[in-house]
Amino acid sequence: MKKKKTKRRMLKSQLLKAMPWFGIDIGGTLTKLVYFEPKDISSIKLDKEVEVLKTIKKYLMKKSAYGKTGHRDTHLQMDNIDIRKRSGSLHFIRFQTTDMCEFLSLVKRKSMACLLKTILATGGGAFKFEDDFRKELNLDLSKIDEVDALIKGIFFAEDQNRSECYYYENCANITECEKRAFDFSKSYPFILVNIGSGVSILAVHGSDNYERVSGSSLGGGTFLGLCSLLTGSKTFEEAIELATAGDNKKVDKLVRDIYGGDYERFQLKADFIASSFGQMHSSEKISDVSRQDLANATLVTITINIAHIARLCALYAKIDKVVFIGNFLRINSTSEKFLAHAMHVWSEGKMEAIFLHHEGYFGALGCLLEMNKEI
Amino acid sequence: MKKKKTKRRMLKSQLLKAMPWFGIDIGGTLTKLVYFEPKDISSIKLDKEVEVLKTIKKYLMKKSAYGKTGHRDTHLQMDNIDIRKRSGSLHFIRFQTTDMCEFLSLVKRKSMACLLKTILATGGGAFKFEDDFRKELNLDLSKIDEVDALIKGIFFAEDQNRSECYYYENCANITECEKRAFDFSKSYPFILVNIGSGVSILAVHGSDNYERVSGSSLGGGTFLGLCSLLTGSKTFEEAIELATAGDNKKVDKLVRDIYGGDYERFQLKADFIASSFGQMHSSEKISDVSRQDLANATLVTITINIAHIARLCALYAKIDKVVFIGNFLRINSTSEKFLAHAMHVWSEGKMEAIFLHHEGYFGALGCLLEMNKEI
Repeated sequence: MKKKKTKRRMLKSQLLKAMPWFGIDIGGTLTKLVYFEPKDISSIKLDKEVEVLKTIKKYLMKKSAYGKTGHRDTHLQMDNIDIRKRSGSLHFIRFQTTDMCEFLSLVKRKSMACLLKTILATGGGAFKFEDDFRKELNLDLSKIDEVDALIKGIFFAEDQNRSECYYYENCANITECEKRAFDFSKSYPFILVNIGSGVSILAVHGSDNYERVSGSSLGGGTFLGLCSLLTGSKTFEEAIELATAGDNKKVDKLVRDIYGGDYERFQLKADFIASSFGQMHSSEKISDVSRQDLANATLVTITINIAHIARLCALYAKIDKVVFIGNFLRINSTSEKFLAHAMHVWSEGKMEAIFLHHEGYFGALGCLLEMNKEI
Repeated sequence: MKKKKTKRRMLKSQLLKAMPWFGIDIGGTLTKLVYFEPKDISSIKLDKEVEVLKTIKKYLMKKSAYGKTGHRDTHLQMDNIDIRKRSGSLHFIRFQTTDMCEFLSLVKRKSMACLLKTILATGGGAFKFEDDFRKELNLDLSKIDEVDALIKGIFFAEDQNRSECYYYENCANITECEKRAFDFSKSYPFILVNIGSGVSILAVHGSDNYERVSGSSLGGGTFLGLCSLLTGSKTFEEAIELATAGDNKKVDKLVRDIYGGDYERFQLKADFIASSFGQMHSSEKISDVSRQDLANATLVTITINIAHIARLCALYAKIDKVVFIGNFLRINSTSEKFLAHAMHVWSEGKMEAIFLHHEGYFGALGCLLEMNKEI
């Protein structure tokens, strides 16, 4: 019995020291990786650890693009962060989940994870790729539930980063609204809408009190898939670029197309969308739209639908703050403004849309923070 | 004063007698026309009226297809119906709203509406085409609100037709569920989901007590538009035929594609859709899907989204019966079964999906019934 306890204490101390510290969120489309780079590297006595950290510095920190789809979001980097008595920076890296094999062989080739026995992971891929991590890297994936990881990550980021939260001022007018810092100190309760490949919706009443209330399969993956089919776009960046230059009014059927003007009884304005893609059953109209118009209509369709579902969830839960996160919102201020506008207008100013700077990284961040706690 | 009253009484009696009786619902995609054909034609003394009714019989009743897009749904015909002391049959006709010009010129050429001064109409097109009716036929469109017309039509049809309402028995298993008559005598309250080009959602507490609670722009028009773009389908019939032969699992990303199996914490089964069209960002996967698969995925995406929104509305309104109507459900038992299944499973058997035989005709029927009442 005594032996077991001693062993456990040794294990704990080894794991606490063991670097590098990673958290990983393996989603349906994107894998998000958060890495903690210690700045007090000189104080480390384990030579092997120093070696590994230097390798990581060389291969991950000197570049911001890796392979076909890997990127480090340098604008999200958080410096002077203290975690478990170590001081350093948090780095935010993403790559397409389809490139998991390449990622694993890079980590293996460069022995980046040779000191680790376990890595904390979340997202569906933590289940799907469990065997690959074990075979390739001799690494166990200790799985944290997505929702738990997300909440941990959000509160840490919000606590450490003053400009983490923002909203859109004057969002009644979509063309004039402007990004402003939001004071999230009195945050509870709020609805959390996580837009990844699909959409998850939580009601958060406190840091330990939250529940999944809904979800939708029409998310970022739907936008990407439909844009790819309709416009031939190859990447999210390309799809967003196309969408930004297009006009959904040529694709959708508006209230004015059906009514000839406003629909007064229900205060539906003439430019309100009555039927998404509703003009596209006519081959004549199809020949009149551009790839940009189709991409814009796809973006607007998905965004408005998410706003709609989020609002219904908020109404049902009697909550007036709605926080939108997830990688669908990356480089996508069009959707953010639409969400802010829709929530404001539909609720007659009673609901507010809030956004977080680190969009899709909260799950991975939560994993990193939970490291060691599991022992 | 006395003169005015006499004039009004005369007008009323003229209008009451004036045939033919039509009700028209001019929607964003389809125009729905309900026509009452009197069987007691011999008792009519006005020769001109007999002449008009015979013309209509010749041109509308002897055929079931007119021009490019006109159809009479003979399977919906209701016989032995008494309306305002006249006995006869109700006929249900539809054509694409884009063919309104052809319709107006047929009616003009055959003098079908020459005895009428006013026709009751609903739908957005009742506003949009008002001037065309006046110019072409010298006919005023007296507009009834869509919702009012809908409710009137539903209760009349339900009252007159024993097999109007149905549901799907054993809908926990989508492949084994079967259509069964539903006793709608204790109907209130219910959520009414009208799926046309877009979706309107009402909470109906009584025949005079109902309100619009929500809506969605992702409806039948979205299905038709996206199918047209993705598969080149030309008609609703073709789109449904393609969808029936396809498999969305090659297009959507399922829970199993992300998790490798079930997502147990939230009881999401492996074959649950995590991201609609979520596999379509890869050109390799795109080359592997058929037109049928794409049509099926489009149908499933739209249908599940409607079920989701309807369920949230029902939850919020604390109502457990959800009635689905609208032309999106025509020849579309795939969507009906999906709706029935989704409502049943997501609510753990607490909510029930109900369908009505006359799908998209209730607005037009309501107009016909309201005829004369407006004086």
